[in-house]
Amino acid sequence: MESRARDISEVNGMDYEQFIEVFGNVIEHCSLCAAAVWRYRPFRDVKHLHEEIGRFIDDLPEAGREGILRSHPDLAGRLAGLGQLTEESKREQKAAGMDGLSQEERNQMETMNNQYRKQFGFPFVICARQNKKTAILQGLATRLKNSPQAELAKGIIEVKKICYLRLLDLVEHEGVESRL
Amino acid sequence: MESRARDISEVNGMDYEQFIEVFGNVIEHCSLCAAAVWRYRPFRDVKHLHEEIGRFIDDLPEAGREGILRSHPDLAGRLAGLGQLTEESKREQKAAGMDGLSQEERNQMETMNNQYRKQFGFPFVICARQNKKTAILQGLATRLKNSPQAELAKGIIEVKKICYLRLLDLVEHEGVESRL
Repeated sequence: MESRARDISEVNGMDYEQFIEVFGNVIEHCSLCAAAVWRYRPFRDVKHLHEEIGRFIDDLPEAGREGILRSHPDLAGRLAGLGQLTEESKREQKAAGMDGLSQEERNQMETMNNQYRKQFGFPFVICARQNKKTAILQGLATRLKNSPQAELAKGIIEVKKICYLRLLDLVEHEGVESRL
Repeated sequence: MESRARDISEVNGMDYEQFIEVFGNVIEHCSLCAAAVWRYRPFRDVKHLHEEIGRFIDDLPEAGREGILRSHPDLAGRLAGLGQLTEESKREQKAAGMDGLSQEERNQMETMNNQYRKQFGFPFVICARQNKKTAILQGLATRLKNSPQAELAKGIIEVKKICYLRLLDLVEHEGVESRL
């Protein structure tokens, strides 16, 4: 995905293939979300595009929202070690300092990631660009105490934040707030 | 996607990443479908897996079913010419004889594909392995007369047939019918 801010009229003028090439990964590995909201063009601005994606996710059956979480990589997980993250994930994990974990922190992260995944059936998802590694480690420890329903809801909120920041990289947004 | 038939116990023993690697494209470019049905393991057999995928699709908001259709390439379209089809699509289009269209048939196909996409907002989708090129050309001409609602429903039926045949390539299925 090329990371360049376009104005909204350029977005609205894209053909379907261009739209998917640019926005296909704003929800990690779930290009269906971009494919679904294509019908809502023209978008007024980047917030409108984000709202339609969010509404689509909210209207999914629960299995679909779980599927969205499952499509995310573990933070500082095996895929990162193998260099197999999407470009977007790589940048985001780096911004949170996940590439600078000590061996002890990495082990701690892995143990809790595994526990989380076992407990809930999907990985721990957090908007890395709005958190630093200490907050993420603490957040993971805290969230392990939640119910599956609460974590599904919480994870989806984080997915929408990640999506919003990815969209701001791709669409001009003067006058639009930079956080949700 | 490696095309080899596994028995269902092997499928049920897969970890999530293996499952997505094998089944991620049984719905073209929509790995979210496989990600969503992961929660329904263990599967009794390939039909059970197919039923869960079908149920997930039926439970999607309408925009999601449209998005699934949009994620399919045009038959004998530009992507085929550029060699950019998924391996599965390439095999399927070949099985229907779409690689052996005359120039006239190819032009006819392209004109009708464009008209269909303009009229309905998603591409014409048909299970190529269960049709030959003459039937496909006729089918496209006929289906252009349908309502958008009817074509959305018809397209999804075809998506499920395509999925079923892809699943039969991937999972052993003695005693299971080979058509839907």
